[in-house]
Amino acid sequence: MSLGTVAIIGLGLQGGSIGLAVQEFLPGTRTTGYDLDPATRTRAAERGLVHQVCGTAAEAVSQADLVIFCVPPGVMGEAAAEVRGAIPSGALVSDVGSCKQSIAAALREALPDHTVIPAHPVAGTENSGPDAGFAHLFRNRWCIVTPPEQTDLVKLSELVAFWEALGANVEIMDARHHDLVLAVTSHLPHLIAYTIVGTASDLEDVTQSEVIKYSAGGFRDFTRIAASDPTMWRDVFLTNRDAVLTMLQRFTEDLTALQRAIRVGDSDTLFDHFARTRAIRRSIIEEGQDDSRPDFGRTDHENGGARG
Amino acid sequence: MSLGTVAIIGLGLQGGSIGLAVQEFLPGTRTTGYDLDPATRTRAAERGLVHQVCGTAAEAVSQADLVIFCVPPGVMGEAAAEVRGAIPSGALVSDVGSCKQSIAAALREALPDHTVIPAHPVAGTENSGPDAGFAHLFRNRWCIVTPPEQTDLVKLSELVAFWEALGANVEIMDARHHDLVLAVTSHLPHLIAYTIVGTASDLEDVTQSEVIKYSAGGFRDFTRIAASDPTMWRDVFLTNRDAVLTMLQRFTEDLTALQRAIRVGDSDTLFDHFARTRAIRRSIIEEGQDDSRPDFGRTDHENGGARG
Repeated sequence: MSLGTVAIIGLGLQGGSIGLAVQEFLPGTRTTGYDLDPATRTRAAERGLVHQVCGTAAEAVSQADLVIFCVPPGVMGEAAAEVRGAIPSGALVSDVGSCKQSIAAALREALPDHTVIPAHPVAGTENSGPDAGFAHLFRNRWCIVTPPEQTDLVKLSELVAFWEALGANVEIMDARHHDLVLAVTSHLPHLIAYTIVGTASDLEDVTQSEVIKYSAGGFRDFTRIAASDPTMWRDVFLTNRDAVLTMLQRFTEDLTALQRAIRVGDSDTLFDHFARTRAIRRSIIEEGQDDSRPDFGRTDHENGGARG
Repeated sequence: MSLGTVAIIGLGLQGGSIGLAVQEFLPGTRTTGYDLDPATRTRAAERGLVHQVCGTAAEAVSQADLVIFCVPPGVMGEAAAEVRGAIPSGALVSDVGSCKQSIAAALREALPDHTVIPAHPVAGTENSGPDAGFAHLFRNRWCIVTPPEQTDLVKLSELVAFWEALGANVEIMDARHHDLVLAVTSHLPHLIAYTIVGTASDLEDVTQSEVIKYSAGGFRDFTRIAASDPTMWRDVFLTNRDAVLTMLQRFTEDLTALQRAIRVGDSDTLFDHFARTRAIRRSIIEEGQDDSRPDFGRTDHENGGARG
């Protein structure tokens, strides 16, 4: 695997983590980067997220073998169009967005003469911006690559090798299926979390300070993902609209059924539903996708009390 | 604070933690315990959750100054009625249930001649049973005490001192208000989590193994609380039905509004909603009710990769 230069457009959580990971795991590869926000560029240079933070996107991509767009889904096409003439003709173009069909279409339209292979590392934290990234973000996480039909197989294998070098496990998937899978494993959970945190802040009978005080009863788990970057998530819901609305309808049907069981006192339906959800958590832990420590390890059994 | 003997009925996560905490923080106090399940009694004795595991509930309470019922909300009255004649007349009776109005009524009916002061430590993990408890569960967590009108103030202060000794911060609250507050901070989040985990397991287009594989995108956060004890949660929803249905209606209204914003492409509404939910998480962390480390500390920045 010998990529000479990787250009990263957008230096937030994802872009910054890629830059740091390349420096750690692919020491022979040079990294350049650009962010629209001057303050982000300054901070990126201070943290050394890439070898060279450039003053324009065109400069950042000018020597690139691989260009990765790490901007919100809604501005992928715009960011790509801006550097159309500057990307070397043989360079591979990719991205890290959470929705693959609409982003693939936007990148292909903006860069009709380049090889575009979209990808999505399923990894992140609730933090965003140039201080959020770290080199091990992708370790033991899945990166879903969604090549178009008749893709360049050499370039595809380069992209796969790149993500594997950064610690990810790579899965190849059709973009449409990706969008459906992510709608249920990521987009719907975020929408639900944003909703319930909003609901809890708007009550008249229960004050916001009470919600905060007694959040250890379950609510606090939702506040983590509801603290994620609002620009990115607005774009996710707008660009993966159909899949999100489909999953939301299924969720609402199921919630209505449980609501009815509560109202009529149907204890068997409630128990049966609650009993079968444990197995999924066990599998997620077995596959290394979550922490097995109770309470996410927040409650420190040895030393007493939660951190934070 | 000098309680001679504390009797714990029900030796799961809460009862076991109380037993261990009393032994650590109130070394002068003797603990007795009972559980309906013989296997739980055996395991409780092996772990030393209390000084003496008794063969009957009557034996466990016979010398008690304080009796704490740690059984599911739906069987509180039954458990109390069973030991009516065995509890010393001066003993204080309390519990740890998540719904206070219905449990208070059940305990008062079962034990009309005793002082009953219900309480609810807002602390827990997704684990249950005799192996789940630990001495520091209540440290820096709130314990809500809901005394009835004209309560015995000496006994009330004993109960407050007891919970403070175990590391909790105590708040006195009206039972009706407690049930409303917990409906939003605990019961609704659990219902939503149980629902979405069920929805995700029932899809035809997305397999369960895909849901598990890509759960790091947000879904896995919901699986933790959806792994909680099904018997207890069935009882919570049935005993705090009205408050849960009220909160659920508010949630559904808010979700419908966001659904509409996605459908019509109202990006301002989405952004505004997503931007205002960050402040709540910050406050929860500032008040020590959650862990400030990104990703609940699951992603270990120093050593690379998530534990588990």
